[in-house]
Amino acid sequence: MSPFTGSAHPTPEWRHLQVDYDDGVATVTLARPAKLNALTFEAYADLRDLLAELSREKRVRALVLAGEGRSFCSGGDVDEIIGATLEMDTSRLLDFNRMTGQVVRAVREAPFPVVAAVHGAAAGAGAVLALAADFRVADPTARFAFLFTRVGLSGGDMGAAYLLPRVVGLGHATRILMLGDPVRAPEAERIGLVSQLTEDGGADRAAQALARRLADGPALAHAQTKALLTAELDMPLAGAVEMDAATQALLMHTEDYAEFHASFTEKRAPKWQGK
Amino acid sequence: MSPFTGSAHPTPEWRHLQVDYDDGVATVTLARPAKLNALTFEAYADLRDLLAELSREKRVRALVLAGEGRSFCSGGDVDEIIGATLEMDTSRLLDFNRMTGQVVRAVREAPFPVVAAVHGAAAGAGAVLALAADFRVADPTARFAFLFTRVGLSGGDMGAAYLLPRVVGLGHATRILMLGDPVRAPEAERIGLVSQLTEDGGADRAAQALARRLADGPALAHAQTKALLTAELDMPLAGAVEMDAATQALLMHTEDYAEFHASFTEKRAPKWQGK
Amino acid sequence: MSPFTGSAHPTPEWRHLQVDYDDGVATVTLARPAKLNALTFEAYADLRDLLAELSREKRVRALVLAGEGRSFCSGGDVDEIIGATLEMDTSRLLDFNRMTGQVVRAVREAPFPVVAAVHGAAAGAGAVLALAADFRVADPTARFAFLFTRVGLSGGDMGAAYLLPRVVGLGHATRILMLGDPVRAPEAERIGLVSQLTEDGGADRAAQALARRLADGPALAHAQTKALLTAELDMPLAGAVEMDAATQALLMHTEDYAEFHASFTEKRAPKWQGK
Repeated sequence: MSPFTGSAHPTPEWRHLQVDYDDGVATVTLARPAKLNALTFEAYADLRDLLAELSREKRVRALVLAGEGRSFCSGGDVDEIIGATLEMDTSRLLDFNRMTGQVVRAVREAPFPVVAAVHGAAAGAGAVLALAADFRVADPTARFAFLFTRVGLSGGDMGAAYLLPRVVGLGHATRILMLGDPVRAPEAERIGLVSQLTEDGGADRAAQALARRLADGPALAHAQTKALLTAELDMPLAGAVEMDAATQALLMHTEDYAEFHASFTEKRAPKWQGK
Repeated sequence: MSPFTGSAHPTPEWRHLQVDYDDGVATVTLARPAKLNALTFEAYADLRDLLAELSREKRVRALVLAGEGRSFCSGGDVDEIIGATLEMDTSRLLDFNRMTGQVVRAVREAPFPVVAAVHGAAAGAGAVLALAADFRVADPTARFAFLFTRVGLSGGDMGAAYLLPRVVGLGHATRILMLGDPVRAPEAERIGLVSQLTEDGGADRAAQALARRLADGPALAHAQTKALLTAELDMPLAGAVEMDAATQALLMHTEDYAEFHASFTEKRAPKWQGK
Repeated sequence: MSPFTGSAHPTPEWRHLQVDYDDGVATVTLARPAKLNALTFEAYADLRDLLAELSREKRVRALVLAGEGRSFCSGGDVDEIIGATLEMDTSRLLDFNRMTGQVVRAVREAPFPVVAAVHGAAAGAGAVLALAADFRVADPTARFAFLFTRVGLSGGDMGAAYLLPRVVGLGHATRILMLGDPVRAPEAERIGLVSQLTEDGGADRAAQALARRLADGPALAHAQTKALLTAELDMPLAGAVEMDAATQALLMHTEDYAEFHASFTEKRAPKWQGK
């Protein structure tokens, strides 16, 4: 637990997500399989709050985001979300849409890598959640459907119009966000939307293995790599180079860096501590 | 017609472009087939002025940009443009180059999607016009030639050095803009420069079908998706997420969004109004 | 030699690099083949200083960066660099990391294209040097290994977290920088990291041919293309379009532009002067 902890208590129970911990790896499972893990207001709020807590507590070094049952996540529920928003005033609508965006920012800014394990549908907000992750480990059943325009909304939802062009280029991103057609696993791999394609049914296991590797490795180096990738998308070259220099100077004082050198000299595997 | 109309009359006749309207779809055809639709000063000016008029009048919901005859567009005419610029003073040269850049900005900032239908050569300014479009529908004869350095000019013409790296990545873009070698349809598809590859001779028909789909669908959602994609290339993540939130809150008050929910509930196809 | 030369003398001898000149093409060879051209503090300093001199002297119009022996460059030497940095204080560590970043900035900002000729390992700083070049000409033995996290450091080293997402997209870049796994030539070509893939053993020859073509062509146009590509990664569309307009207006007064028109009219090949 971080010493930078004040009065706030950790949330004792996440009622709208399943959260498991295993030696530095948190697994967050969307667990409404009968609804293809459709998101509710409460599930969004739990994702926002859980990521905030994990980001300050430093109890995990990698996080897997997975979906139970036949799909990763079918997005916002048509009845519980779309129907409800039709009754909302402007202020409330803005609150809702800011909350969903905060989830994406929390994923991008979390001080640990996030691995999405995708099978079946990753639709709507589910597609953006996967897009916001650092890694998308997918099996051949995966299909990403940024279907916002299909419900009359903008394809730029939760940062998708920022993120997708930076992942697959502006041409593919325009087609995908404007039309809302599903992107199936082979195309997703071809255009760089998928980080790792597994055998059928293998996404969860491969995502766990990747998160384990990340958590057991030089985790502070991984976290800083993520922080720099996130920040430098928004910075000019000169600032990025300076930020890299300061970061490496910082990390050259870490135990992991010294351990690498010692292990190399002693011809043995390094024992990473993540600090 | 938009109520935000003042004294300016619509231009009664576009003499340097062929412009056709069909129920919300404008088709702009470069129609100098004997010259492979080489652009003249007047054609650039008409493109700039037509896009400005269409952008404020709101009479179209999608636009197709096509070329008559054997090619899409062979770029600036060697005699009528290169020869003429050799006689110009600095001020006039700047006027000319700003005008061509304004065409690209007008394409990117138009409040409707633009579909380029590309067959044969898309060369020089023709290649950048296609690049500025939201969709490039191309047939196997298409070849994109950013041949500016071949005439002694910079490969960064009309925003190409901004747009191309964001579509195909900096490595491909450097090679293509620095060397000016043609990019043929298979490579263009492989690197993400082509949105849809059709059968031989099928680009115009497929571009019309796509524009029809866009115009008949939730056109305001399409327009906002384009606006966000364009704006968020130039914004940091935090601002982009906030812009998405405000846009979705806005669109959640539209008739199309309510119509989606009604049609879903009633198990019928939605009737989009584009508002 | 540029008239903009003051008191500084050109460095008479580069002791930590092999530098050859051939009619406007400089070839910089990392020449410590017994160590797979591992970089030392002095080699970084020579790269920084050589690029600064070449950038102000204007004696070359293209530069090839190559490696002698079995590999392009294995990166910072484990003993000479990693071992030495373990003894450094914060100020010295920042100096070192700023110097390596300055090399990357010098490559990106040099007023001539840089062609990396890659075979065998391009690892660590060697991978970033290749990434910073305008062209990566590689043979099938090439493997790019951004292995910074493997030594406990950030994958964002020398601007890699800025450059790699702009070359291959954020998804691939995250995987490559976070995990440090080698990217072999076929994958490098597929994701756009390689500009030109040659036959086995052909990278040096092809890189020389490309540099020769660049130096003998409209070299000022090439230099400005590079400058715009570099600058416009960090600019919004409106500024980029204006910068393109000013640059083209400038180049339309050059001898090369007039020469293109004359040669076209006279149906002969242009004689480029690079001005």
